Amino acid sequence: MGDIILISNYKYKKFILSYKSIYQTNLTYSLMNNAICKLFQIEYPIIQAGMIWCSGWELASAVSNAGGLGLIGAGSMYPEILREHIQKCKKATDKPFGVNVPLLYPNIEEHMKVIVEEGVKIVFTSAGNPKTWTGHLQEKGITVVHVVSNVKFALKSQEAGVNAVVAEGFEAGGHNGREETTTLVLIPQVKKAINIPLIAAGGIGSGQAMAACLALGADAVQVGSRFVATPESSAHQAFKDTVVKAQEGDTILTLKQLTPVRLIKNDFCNKVLAAEQTGASKEELTTLLGRARAKKGMFEGDLSEGELEIGQVSGAITAIKPAAEIVKELMDDCKQTIARLNAIGF
Amino acid sequence: MGDIILISNYKYKKFILSYKSIYQTNLTYSLMNNAICKLFQIEYPIIQAGMIWCSGWELASAVSNAGGLGLIGAGSMYPEILREHIQKCKKATDKPFGVNVPLLYPNIEEHMKVIVEEGVKIVFTSAGNPKTWTGHLQEKGITVVHVVSNVKFALKSQEAGVNAVVAEGFEAGGHNGREETTTLVLIPQVKKAINIPLIAAGGIGSGQAMAACLALGADAVQVGSRFVATPESSAHQAFKDTVVKAQEGDTILTLKQLTPVRLIKNDFCNKVLAAEQTGASKEELTTLLGRARAKKGMFEGDLSEGELEIGQVSGAITAIKPAAEIVKELMDDCKQTIARLNAIGF
Repeated sequence: MGDIILISNYKYKKFILSYKSIYQTNLTYSLMNNAICKLFQIEYPIIQAGMIWCSGWELASAVSNAGGLGLIGAGSMYPEILREHIQKCKKATDKPFGVNVPLLYPNIEEHMKVIVEEGVKIVFTSAGNPKTWTGHLQEKGITVVHVVSNVKFALKSQEAGVNAVVAEGFEAGGHNGREETTTLVLIPQVKKAINIPLIAAGGIGSGQAMAACLALGADAVQVGSRFVATPESSAHQAFKDTVVKAQEGDTILTLKQLTPVRLIKNDFCNKVLAAEQTGASKEELTTLLGRARAKKGMFEGDLSEGELEIGQVSGAITAIKPAAEIVKELMDDCKQTIARLNAIGF
Repeated sequence: MGDIILISNYKYKKFILSYKSIYQTNLTYSLMNNAICKLFQIEYPIIQAGMIWCSGWELASAVSNAGGLGLIGAGSMYPEILREHIQKCKKATDKPFGVNVPLLYPNIEEHMKVIVEEGVKIVFTSAGNPKTWTGHLQEKGITVVHVVSNVKFALKSQEAGVNAVVAEGFEAGGHNGREETTTLVLIPQVKKAINIPLIAAGGIGSGQAMAACLALGADAVQVGSRFVATPESSAHQAFKDTVVKAQEGDTILTLKQLTPVRLIKNDFCNKVLAAEQTGASKEELTTLLGRARAKKGMFEGDLSEGELEIGQVSGAITAIKPAAEIVKELMDDCKQTIARLNAIGF
C-alpha cells in the first residue's frame, strides 16, 4: 500500500487509488492469495454490507470502484426498483458488485428473477434457510454467500453448498441473532467449524477492527454502519447525522420476542423497551411496531418515531466521508496495525 | 518465544517455561517495553481475572509463576479467608500477584485493611466508584486498576488517578455493564478516550483473541473463563465440566433490572428469563434470586439451581488444562497469529 498520503480532494484520491491498483502489483498479488479476494475477484478483502434504505447503486458502485465489494440491499426495494439499481450499478462500475437478499422478505421469487435476468454475479442471502436458493442461483453461475449469527447455521450454510459465509456478531446493526454471540467470540468458533471462506461482520468500522478480525481467522470483513455515514449512502441526511453523533451505549438490541433488531435509542425504541419491561405480548409488540418504521426512520428521517437500525460501532463514527476514502482508511489502518503488532517483538 | 514444543508433562513444562524466562532476554526486553508488563513487573501481558468462587491463591500463584499476573478474587471471601489466601499466595510465588475487590460488596473496609496489612502490591477494583479507594491504596504504595464497561467510567477512573483500566465487553462472564458494548467496539473507544495503560477483557480465551485485542489498542488482556477450567481453579469440578461442555449460545446476560449478569442457561436461569418475559418486578426478581446462588452453582456444584457465571467464550473451551499451559498457549498462539497477519503481505 506504500506510505500514507493525506489528500483531501476526493477525486484526486480516487485517481491515486486506481493508479496504485495498476502499479502496485505486489499488493495485488498478495491479496489475490486471499480466499475472498479470489472468490469475488476484488482488490481488497472489504465487503460493504447490503443494508435496507442505505445501500443502493451509488454506495455499492462507489465501494466496488474503490476495490472492495459493494452490495445493493434488496430488502427495501420492490423488484422493479431493484432492477433499476442493478442497471445503474452496472453503468457506474465495471468492477464486481453484488446484491443482498433477505430470504424472509416478500417478493423473494421476483427478486431472484430480476437478479438472474440482470446477470448479477454475486448474491448474499440472509434471514432464511440457505438451502432454498443456493443451488438455483449457483446453476445460473452466481456466487452465493449466506449471512449467519451462530455456528449451527454456519454449518448448515456450508452443507447447503454456499461459496462463503458471513458470520455477524451481536454488535451489528439491524436484524441480529438470538444467541447474542459477539464477533470476537463468534468468528474463531465459526472458523473452526467450517472449511469455506469466512467473512467477519459486526462492530467493524476501522482498520484496527479489520486487523482484529483477520487475527480471529476471518478472510475478509463486512462493514455496514461505517458506510451509512457516506455521501453515497441513500439514508436520509438526518439519519446520517444521527449516526455521526451517536456515542458508545446509544444502541440496543430490542424486539427480541419478534426478530431481534439493534436500534439507536429514540422515542420509538424507548416505547418498545418500556412495553417489554412490563411483559408485553408478541401481538402487542407487533402492533406497537406497526409498518414501515425502518423506512420512516432511515429513509424519511423521522428520528423520533422511526426505526433507526445501526451497529454499536456508530459510537466511534465521527464524520461523513466518501466510501472510497473509508476503503482506503480501512486498508491503511489495517496495514499499520499489523506493523504495530509485529513491532511488539513477541 | 522459540518454536512450539509439545510436552504433556506439566512439571517439566513449568521448568522449561522458567528456563526460557531466564535465557530469552530478547523476549523479556521487548515485553518489558509493554506498559502493563512494566507497571506490574511481569513477563507476559496476561492478567488472570479475579473471579468469585474460582480464583483463590492456587490459581493466582500458578498464573503468576507462569509469567502472567494472577489475581485473588476477594468478592467471595470473608476478610480472614482473604488474609489466608494472600498469605498462601505469598508462599507459593515470589512473582507479583494482586487482589480483585468488588467495591459494592460488604466488608469492603475490612478487605482493604487486610490487603494493606498483608503488603499486597496490586489491587483491581470493580463494581463501584473508583474515587473511593484509589487514593488511599496508592498512599500505601499499591498499584490500583479499575474495571469498567463503558467509556464514561474509563474516563472517571483516569480522573480518579488509577494506574490502568480494564475495559470489559458484553461477552464477559458474571457481572456486566448496562450498555452491552462488546469488547471489539469498546476497546478502541476507551483507548481513544484515556492515556493510561489499557487491559482488554471479555471474550478472550485464545492467543488469536489476544492478538485481536492488541490490534484494537489494548496493552494487555484479562482472561477469566479460560482459567476457570484449570486444575488450580477453586470452582467445583461439576462447574468446570459444564464450562468445558458449553457450546456457542449457551450463556445469556440476564437479571438486567438488578445487576446484569452473564450465566450459563440452566433451570434457575430459565426461571429468571420466564419471569422477566412476563414483566416481573425488581422485588420479584430479588426474591427469585435469593441468596448465595453463585456459591451454590460455582462452588457447590448445583448445576440446576445455582448461578453459573461464565463468559461467552466458554463455548470455545474444550479441555481443563493447567494454568501455566494456558499462559504458554496464549503467548504462542498470539505470536503465531501476528506472524500470520504479517504474512498476508499488505
